[in-house]
Amino acid sequence: MPAMETPEGYRPLDEAGVREFLAGLPAIASRLGGQSAGWTMSEVGDGNLNVVYLVDGPDGSVCVKQSLPYVRVAGESWPLPLERTFFENAYYRHHGAALAGLVPEVYHYEPALFAIVMERLSPHIILRRGLIAGSIYPTMAQTIGAYVARASYGTSDLALSLDDKFAGVAEFAANNALRRITAELIFTHPYRVTDRNRWTSPQLDDLALAIRSDAELKAAAAWRGHQFLTNAQALIHGDLHTGSIMVTADDTRVIDPEFAIYGPIGFDLGALLANLLMSYFSQPGHETRAGERREQSEWLLAQVPVFWNAFADTFTALWKQGNSGDAYPAVMLAGDASSDIALERLLAELFDDMLGFAGAKTMRRIFGFAHNADFELIADNDRRAACERRAVTLARRFLVEPGSFRTAADIVAAAREAAQA
Amino acid sequence: MPAMETPEGYRPLDEAGVREFLAGLPAIASRLGGQSAGWTMSEVGDGNLNVVYLVDGPDGSVCVKQSLPYVRVAGESWPLPLERTFFENAYYRHHGAALAGLVPEVYHYEPALFAIVMERLSPHIILRRGLIAGSIYPTMAQTIGAYVARASYGTSDLALSLDDKFAGVAEFAANNALRRITAELIFTHPYRVTDRNRWTSPQLDDLALAIRSDAELKAAAAWRGHQFLTNAQALIHGDLHTGSIMVTADDTRVIDPEFAIYGPIGFDLGALLANLLMSYFSQPGHETRAGERREQSEWLLAQVPVFWNAFADTFTALWKQGNSGDAYPAVMLAGDASSDIALERLLAELFDDMLGFAGAKTMRRIFGFAHNADFELIADNDRRAACERRAVTLARRFLVEPGSFRTAADIVAAAREAAQA
Repeated sequence: MPAMETPEGYRPLDEAGVREFLAGLPAIASRLGGQSAGWTMSEVGDGNLNVVYLVDGPDGSVCVKQSLPYVRVAGESWPLPLERTFFENAYYRHHGAALAGLVPEVYHYEPALFAIVMERLSPHIILRRGLIAGSIYPTMAQTIGAYVARASYGTSDLALSLDDKFAGVAEFAANNALRRITAELIFTHPYRVTDRNRWTSPQLDDLALAIRSDAELKAAAAWRGHQFLTNAQALIHGDLHTGSIMVTADDTRVIDPEFAIYGPIGFDLGALLANLLMSYFSQPGHETRAGERREQSEWLLAQVPVFWNAFADTFTALWKQGNSGDAYPAVMLAGDASSDIALERLLAELFDDMLGFAGAKTMRRIFGFAHNADFELIADNDRRAACERRAVTLARRFLVEPGSFRTAADIVAAAREAAQA
Repeated sequence: MPAMETPEGYRPLDEAGVREFLAGLPAIASRLGGQSAGWTMSEVGDGNLNVVYLVDGPDGSVCVKQSLPYVRVAGESWPLPLERTFFENAYYRHHGAALAGLVPEVYHYEPALFAIVMERLSPHIILRRGLIAGSIYPTMAQTIGAYVARASYGTSDLALSLDDKFAGVAEFAANNALRRITAELIFTHPYRVTDRNRWTSPQLDDLALAIRSDAELKAAAAWRGHQFLTNAQALIHGDLHTGSIMVTADDTRVIDPEFAIYGPIGFDLGALLANLLMSYFSQPGHETRAGERREQSEWLLAQVPVFWNAFADTFTALWKQGNSGDAYPAVMLAGDASSDIALERLLAELFDDMLGFAGAKTMRRIFGFAHNADFELIADNDRRAACERRAVTLARRFLVEPGSFRTAADIVAAAREAAQA
C-alpha cells in the first residue's frame, strides 16, 4: 500500500522522532531533565485512533499524543484527517482554567506534527480497566458529574455572549471527520447492514436482526442522530466513556477530547451513564465465583444517581450565580419564579437526552464497529451474550421510552430489572 | 456626532454614488441601457436597517441594497456592522437554484460597498401593505409554505452531508450582529424593562406589566430563545414576516434574508404564522364600516392550514425522495415503518416550534422595539389596543401551552376564540 499523503512538515513519530522532537523544546527538555538520550519511553496508545508515548526523564515525565492519518485500529484502509489533535488541544484551550485539575495539563501543541505534549498522569489507569478488574472509585462519579456541568455550562449560551459562543461553534464546525464517525458508527450503522458491524454471534444474531427491523427503535435512534447534528448547546467532549477517564483511588481526570464539537450536553452525560451501566451488566461475566462482583455491581448502580445529582447540583449552582450569557439571562429571569421554572425544564430535557444518548451508545458497543472491553474481555461467548442482552433491553427502553424515566432512581430500578431478566 | 468608522473602500451611496457604481458594472449598465445620466432612481428603504434604491433605465431596472453602519430606524446611536448584506448574498448563494423564482435574482454583490444589485420586483408590493389595504393573495400562503420546506430541507442534515452542512454553520456563525438583535429584541426585551420597549399606552400598561411578571410565560420565552441560539437545523431566513415578502396577485417573492443563520426551521414558520395572525387581529381596526374586512379576515384564517399543509406536504415529498444527508438517512430508514414514524415525529416538533416562535414574535411586535404597521396604522389607540390585546391572548397560549394545539385547525379555532373575546 502506498504511503498516505500528509501535510508538509508532518511525520509519524517513532521513538527516535519523539526524542528529537522533545529535545528541541527547551521547556519540555528541562522538565524531563538530563540528556535526551537517557529518556525512557513506551508507546501505550490503546485507544482506537492515535499514537501515545509516555516519556520519563530524571526530573519528570510527559505524555506525547500524535494523530495518525488513518484510524489506528482499522489501519490505512480507513483514512482520517490529522486535525483531531488540533481539536483536542482546542477543547482544552476553550475550557481553560475551568477544568484545571480535571484534565491533563497541556505543555505544548505542535501544529505541523499534530502532536500534543501534556502531563503524564501517574499512577492513573484507565477507568474502564479498573472497573473490569473489580475496583471501586469513590469520588469518580461525583467528579465527572460536576465536570460535565462545569464544562458544558461554561461554554454554553448561559455563560457566554453569543459572540463568544458562535466563535467556538465556527471553530469546531470543522471537526467533521470525527463528527462523521459518531454520526455513522453510533446513530446509523447498528441499524443497518454494513461490513463494519459485528456482534457476539450466533448468540445475538436474533437481536442484531431485530434491531434492524424495529421501526420504533430506528426512528428513535435517527431522531437522536439528528439531535446530535443540530443541537449546539455547549462544547462537549464527544467521547466521554470510561476509556476516556483516568483514575487513581482519589483522583479523576478526563482525557482524549478529540471528538470535541458544539453539541448536546446530554451526549456527554449519556456516554458516561451508558458506560457505567455496561460495566454493571458486564460484571457477572467477570466473576470467577458467584457473587464475587456483587459489591462492585451495587456500587456501580449507586453511581448513577451520584453522577446525575452531581451534574444537576453543580449546573444549578452555576445557574444561580446568575446567567451572564444570551440564553436565560439573569437580567430577564431573576426576581420571580421564571428562573426556577426554566432551570427545572432544562434539567428535565438534559435528563431525557442523557437517556436517549446512553441508549444509542450502548447499542453501538454491542452491534457496531467499536466494542467495549467490558464485554469483550468476557471470553465465554454465551456468558458475554447474556450480559450484552440485558444491556440491550435497557438501552432500547432508553431510546424508545425515555419519558418513562423521571429520576435517577428510575434508571437504577430499570437496570436492576433488566439484569434479573 | 463624528462620522462612524467604516472599512476602507466603503462609502454610503447617495444617488450620484449609485449611478457611478452601476455605470462601472458593464453587465448592469447594459441591463439598464442608455446613458447612466438618464437613469431614474428612487430611494425606497422602508425597512428598519438599510438603504434601498430602485433604478430604471430605458432597457431594464435593478434594485440596489446597501448596508449602513447603523440601524437606520434608530440612527447612528445604534451601530451595526455592515456585514449583513454579505450574509443576505450568502443566503441566496447557499440556496441557489432551489429558490429560483421565489426570491429576487441577484445580479452582483460588491463586497467593499456591502451592496447587492438585484432584480427589481415590479409591480410587486410588500405583502404587509397589501394586507393592510384589504387585499387577498390567493397563492401566497401555499407558495411560502412550500418555500420554507424547500429552503429548510435543502440546507438541512437531511439533504446535505455533514461536511457541507457544517461549512454553512461555520459561515453563518459570524452573523452575530443580527443574531443578537433577534436574541434581545424578540426573546428578552419584551419581558424586562428597557428603554427600547414601547406599547400602546396607557391601554396596554396592565398587559406590559403582566408579562414582565408572568413566570410561566417568561420561562417559555427564554426556552424559545435558547432554542433559537442552539438548534441549527437549517439555513433559515431569520425574519420571514409579511414585510419580507413581495407580492402581485399571482407572484410571491421572499426578500431581505440578512438575518440568515443556521437555526430552527420553526423560526421561519412561526414568523409567517404570527404575521398572518397579527394581520387577522388587526383587520377590525382598519374597517371604516362594520364587517368591511370580514371576507379578508376569513381568508387570512384559512391561510393558516394552507400555509402549514403546503410546508408539511412539500417537506414530506422531499423526504420521500430519500434523505441523502447524514440525518435520517434513507439507507437506514427506508424499507420499514421507521421512516414514516420519524417524519411524523419531526413534523410534530416543527409544528410545536412554529407555535412557540409565533408567540414570541407576536409579543415583540406589541411590547418591544419594532412594531408592525398592521397595528401601528390603526390611528385610534383604543381600537389598536383592543386588536393587540386579542393577539396577545393567543400568543401567550402559543408560548405556554403549544402542546394543546395538534392541527392547523386548532390554531384557527383558537384565533377565532381570541378574536371574539
